[in-house]
Amino acid sequence: MDIIIIGTGNTATILGRKLKAAGHTILQIFGRDTKAASELAYELDTESTNYWSVVQRNADIYILAVSDIAIEEVARELQLNDKTIVHTAGAVSKDVLKDASTHYGVFYPLQSLKKLGAHSPHIPMLIDANDQQTLAQLEALGISISDNVIEANDDQRLKLHLAAVFCNNFVNHLYALMEEYCHREGLDFQLLTPLIQETALRVQTLSPAKSQTGPAIRQDTNTIEKHLGLLEKHPDLKAIYQLLTQSIQQHN
Amino acid sequence: MDIIIIGTGNTATILGRKLKAAGHTILQIFGRDTKAASELAYELDTESTNYWSVVQRNADIYILAVSDIAIEEVARELQLNDKTIVHTAGAVSKDVLKDASTHYGVFYPLQSLKKLGAHSPHIPMLIDANDQQTLAQLEALGISISDNVIEANDDQRLKLHLAAVFCNNFVNHLYALMEEYCHREGLDFQLLTPLIQETALRVQTLSPAKSQTGPAIRQDTNTIEKHLGLLEKHPDLKAIYQLLTQSIQQHN
Repeated sequence: MDIIIIGTGNTATILGRKLKAAGHTILQIFGRDTKAASELAYELDTESTNYWSVVQRNADIYILAVSDIAIEEVARELQLNDKTIVHTAGAVSKDVLKDASTHYGVFYPLQSLKKLGAHSPHIPMLIDANDQQTLAQLEALGISISDNVIEANDDQRLKLHLAAVFCNNFVNHLYALMEEYCHREGLDFQLLTPLIQETALRVQTLSPAKSQTGPAIRQDTNTIEKHLGLLEKHPDLKAIYQLLTQSIQQHN
Repeated sequence: MDIIIIGTGNTATILGRKLKAAGHTILQIFGRDTKAASELAYELDTESTNYWSVVQRNADIYILAVSDIAIEEVARELQLNDKTIVHTAGAVSKDVLKDASTHYGVFYPLQSLKKLGAHSPHIPMLIDANDQQTLAQLEALGISISDNVIEANDDQRLKLHLAAVFCNNFVNHLYALMEEYCHREGLDFQLLTPLIQETALRVQTLSPAKSQTGPAIRQDTNTIEKHLGLLEKHPDLKAIYQLLTQSIQQHN
């Protein structure tokens, strides 16, 4: 398909790379940051612009890979009649695009995308559209870059986005808190990275509810008290420790 | 070295396998659960017993891979004079072993060990001992099964054990909560496993403080409000969401 990408960030870059590698033609990159736009255009062997008036009108799909709050504004700039327009956001309704075209939808990668990443992770694609024809088009586009393409409406997508916040943002924050804790205590956080890797690997094949271990689930009050003693001087960590310990015990 | 393993659980099994593979001789397995003990002994090509009186006295090292609360009791049973005795616990002082032998210490694997696991994760080994000779012996033993052997005293080991609770137990519980949430909402938790894998993979090479993303760190009140709306009917999840969002924003 002929594709125009609006945006130059991580999502725009990764989707652009994958779509080009899958044989699609990237007709144009639009980006307000002209340097970023021309860099991405160069990488994807296409042209870039930062003028709405020169955005080509003949693409099959316009992908808005911009920040959540910019989606509506960008959609107002692009009056596409019947060309498909999609955004790539988990927590934004597809209906913010309804005035931009008769065919609109969502093309949401359920993955943490970093353009500087050396490797290429699996990306489940959640798609949605306002009609069956557009949905079929997005499904074809999704299958060309992912082995896991799922239809998910606004409500389902928002719920999966929430779950992603727990599984990615909150988990990464626990890592960051422990990196800081180890640093303060003169310990090497890198000692924990094999455990982190193993924890994530296990959930790929085993239900996490079945592999819960540790002092909380075995009601090991003795160890919990030792940990809370260490956390007396870290009240922020103590609050998190207590809430998550309580939650583990309630779910046991 | 000639080794006797007390215990038949995950730690006893994984350490036993690694030590045997490294060329050590497992002289004996002691286990109260006679079936588990004979199974492990069979796998490690040795004998098993559940009588303290027949535990051989001529091993170089006795490894107590038993539950935290059983360590002291087992140590009382084993009067070893000058043979090295170690436990494998993160949150227990080495000094609980001081009456069992003149040489004692800790041989703690900083990893989540499951005997049924198909693969063999990296295991950082934290060692400690009451004298330099025993420490050197444990270091040699550690190096034979791990490329990462670190001396850590009781205080350092307890702190790393606490960090392991955050990075493994708490993280796994967040996964479990989201598995349950997805199940209740009719969504497929498996869609999140690539994101989980990517999150853990990134921390192997990048500081988690530098790779934090999501609505909390970008102060995206609009998305946070949408998520909190979804969590009205899940007050336990809402409390965790709010505390971790606040923590992310305070650490920004």
